Amino acid sequence: MSLEALRREIGAVNDLLCAASLLVWDSRTVMPSGGVEARGHQIATLMESARERLLAPATLRALDAAETAVQSAPGDDAACREVAAVRDAVAFHGRIPAQLIRAKAELRPRANAAWIEARKSNDFTIFAPHLAATIDLQRAYADAIGHADHPYDALLSLYEPGETTASVRALFDRLRPALRDIRMAAEAKRAPRTDFMHRPFPAEGQRRFGERIGEKFGYDFARGRLDFTVHPFEISFTRHDVRITMRRAETFAPPAIFGAFHEVGHGLYEQNVDPAYTRTALATDLKQLYAVGGTSFGAHESQSRLWENHVGRSRAFWDLHFADLRETFAPSLDDVDAAAFHRAVTAVRPGLVRTDADELTYDLHIMLRVEIEADLIAGTLKVADIPEAWNAAMRRDLGLAPPGDADGCLQDIHWSSGMFGSFCTYTIGNVMGAQLFETALGDEGIATGFGRGDYAPLHAWLKTHVWQHGRRFGRDGILARATGRGLEVEPYIRHLTRRYGQR
Amino acid sequence: MSLEALRREIGAVNDLLCAASLLVWDSRTVMPSGGVEARGHQIATLMESARERLLAPATLRALDAAETAVQSAPGDDAACREVAAVRDAVAFHGRIPAQLIRAKAELRPRANAAWIEARKSNDFTIFAPHLAATIDLQRAYADAIGHADHPYDALLSLYEPGETTASVRALFDRLRPALRDIRMAAEAKRAPRTDFMHRPFPAEGQRRFGERIGEKFGYDFARGRLDFTVHPFEISFTRHDVRITMRRAETFAPPAIFGAFHEVGHGLYEQNVDPAYTRTALATDLKQLYAVGGTSFGAHESQSRLWENHVGRSRAFWDLHFADLRETFAPSLDDVDAAAFHRAVTAVRPGLVRTDADELTYDLHIMLRVEIEADLIAGTLKVADIPEAWNAAMRRDLGLAPPGDADGCLQDIHWSSGMFGSFCTYTIGNVMGAQLFETALGDEGIATGFGRGDYAPLHAWLKTHVWQHGRRFGRDGILARATGRGLEVEPYIRHLTRRYGQR
Repeated sequence: MSLEALRREIGAVNDLLCAASLLVWDSRTVMPSGGVEARGHQIATLMESARERLLAPATLRALDAAETAVQSAPGDDAACREVAAVRDAVAFHGRIPAQLIRAKAELRPRANAAWIEARKSNDFTIFAPHLAATIDLQRAYADAIGHADHPYDALLSLYEPGETTASVRALFDRLRPALRDIRMAAEAKRAPRTDFMHRPFPAEGQRRFGERIGEKFGYDFARGRLDFTVHPFEISFTRHDVRITMRRAETFAPPAIFGAFHEVGHGLYEQNVDPAYTRTALATDLKQLYAVGGTSFGAHESQSRLWENHVGRSRAFWDLHFADLRETFAPSLDDVDAAAFHRAVTAVRPGLVRTDADELTYDLHIMLRVEIEADLIAGTLKVADIPEAWNAAMRRDLGLAPPGDADGCLQDIHWSSGMFGSFCTYTIGNVMGAQLFETALGDEGIATGFGRGDYAPLHAWLKTHVWQHGRRFGRDGILARATGRGLEVEPYIRHLTRRYGQR
Repeated sequence: MSLEALRREIGAVNDLLCAASLLVWDSRTVMPSGGVEARGHQIATLMESARERLLAPATLRALDAAETAVQSAPGDDAACREVAAVRDAVAFHGRIPAQLIRAKAELRPRANAAWIEARKSNDFTIFAPHLAATIDLQRAYADAIGHADHPYDALLSLYEPGETTASVRALFDRLRPALRDIRMAAEAKRAPRTDFMHRPFPAEGQRRFGERIGEKFGYDFARGRLDFTVHPFEISFTRHDVRITMRRAETFAPPAIFGAFHEVGHGLYEQNVDPAYTRTALATDLKQLYAVGGTSFGAHESQSRLWENHVGRSRAFWDLHFADLRETFAPSLDDVDAAAFHRAVTAVRPGLVRTDADELTYDLHIMLRVEIEADLIAGTLKVADIPEAWNAAMRRDLGLAPPGDADGCLQDIHWSSGMFGSFCTYTIGNVMGAQLFETALGDEGIATGFGRGDYAPLHAWLKTHVWQHGRRFGRDGILARATGRGLEVEPYIRHLTRRYGQR
């Protein structure tokens, strides 16, 4: 008895999901506009085929045999985890009625079109009935998955296994007062110059700079590439082909530059999963049916945030790399120095839009969404009352009043895509990233390298403690091995205080 | 009873095959080098999944029901043809043992690697054992498919249904003496100036010129794109996304320019298949498992050759478009006029390499390969004797002696990929293209438009008589409807005589 037969079947599932991901990459980068409809059919068929292959008799027979083969191995053995992940996923998909999968798939494009229309018209009522239908299906999905205390728990488990509505609220309750204190300190400071951010930054220069920094961080371009898209993202088709994209913002540098650092961070995680896990359940999310090597959305975000904010937004980084940036975009930054540039990219400016938010206020956008999502799924908030709830929270948390819903509760694509439960992972990523970075920086070699622009020691530490494990361990398993502790908010608060809260 | 259930299943098969094609496109254009191995797994799984879906119980039930639904319709009704194509394919795949499919798939990468090595070392013996194994499998494949007179017939039927070893030889026997006569006349003429072909032709200029001509020919860039690759090709993922590529030959213009015209011709065929056939058996090769709207390889090649040679290599074309070319590549062609350029691109220069061959001698390369292939499959030629047979035929037909096998019998990728039976379709395409073009030009509006650079009437005629039908009719069905005749070599000979055989 061995795992060979199971690996053959799961390898095929991974192949189908990698193909689906490539079709997504293509549709966002190079696909001609005419291809949209056919592409929708193709991706749907690949997802359906992957699910069918996972639940096929041959897979189930191979799974039984594999369970027998690993039964005497210790529980955290990689092969044990691999087999258990397949069993979990098979049980998970067995609980979801085919009718519900179809209903979600059919609603998604219509809800998405209504959202686009509502945003364009700045009219929430256009989207409201589709959102109500989406929430009904998400609640049915949560019930099918199963939950004890709160239906939202079931949805959270898809993105961040182990988290519950209560645990996420507890995390937010620890973070919120600290953010308020730091913000008060930050706002007492004089606002830095940021005018030079709005000057010509030719796109090819942005890409070349992004590539140079990506290489410094250790991203392997022989197994990846960097393209332009409207919304930046990272996507992989095994660790051997991990692609990232960046915005093309030719008169405003930060979104493109920091977006590139962010996606490089995601890419590093995927490129450095143990090669032995390629095409196995340890590099495939078999519940969400997504080819990914990272262990949870929050753990993934911890890596993007670490490289974007802890490395890329540090003073040490710009002391070393600002000259390159200035030369790349000459003469746009000729009257700026590293210190001024660093002050500009760490300026605190509360705004209405999550994706434009600064590092300090970003989490306030997340908390607001998670509260609304949880109440919507629980049924204690009605869809019609979302704009009022949103705007009240914006005033309370950020002191801003959205002029309309387009820049308010209609700004994110998530709800129209049937994604409920993912928002908290952005904040969990911030928290986990800070915790890992603080631990890593306790190593003298890493700290010294960091100050010299030698990121290899940090890269090696993250590879050893995080990346190589793929999905073998859960987020808390990674944290326990890397830091000896569970998820803790204090390192993140210390980081924000140092960067934003000191005079 | 209706076709709905069958269309759902075949739609999924088409989706999987379109995804496989996209993975191929990606691997040849933008994929990072590290992705090769995983990509091989992914494409293999997609092909296997498509075949399984075609042969799944749900498809077979739907096929039975569809046959009942169309039984009273006339035989050339589109729905009848659609259902019959599925039945044919199901019967076909039922005859091929799974063991043989696996053996072919396993041999292909090894044979390909040996071929690359053999070519690099200019040593046929490195490739010989793998070629022998390939031929054994191809003969087993032919036996599984079934054949009456010659095993090679079975392989020809995959690429050009209706053709046999005997019918292809008969076609060649009519063409060969004509080619010899025209060549003698051509060689009696003074060789034209071609020195200006070897000057700087920046790649972006080539692409822009290719795009402008592609648009003039009616290629729709909202449903396509043009990229650079080492070997140019056309590939489609439904008629709504049909991509073409061109060579990047910055110091030699013809391969890039005429290659682009050629691929535009293939692209026009795919873009103009009846939209009602999208994702059906009338736009999918269910035997070869390939998402294609054209009805045979020869019919497809007829369209690429028509636009490349009959339109693009005509004097009328360059009288109209040479000024654009000269301006695009100024100053490289400043001392050349349309007449001189046209003489250069219709120069006859027998060479060793098929893909570099001129229009007149191209078919001689094909005939040589088809004869060798047929004898190899029949077992009357041994692998070890290929170099001698090749070189003898090259001396006899082209008057040239290859200095080594790299530019001789090792030059094509086909045999190492297990493609036996496709070569004849290049010549059939030349013949059919000439026949269609001559018929079309009998229409005064088409001839007038052609002389003015207005290709819309030709485009409309081809759409009506060829493209829209997709795979509804076979090649001879298309020819009968368009020209009232079967495949005839005379129009092609008339064309070659006019262009190359007159003083």
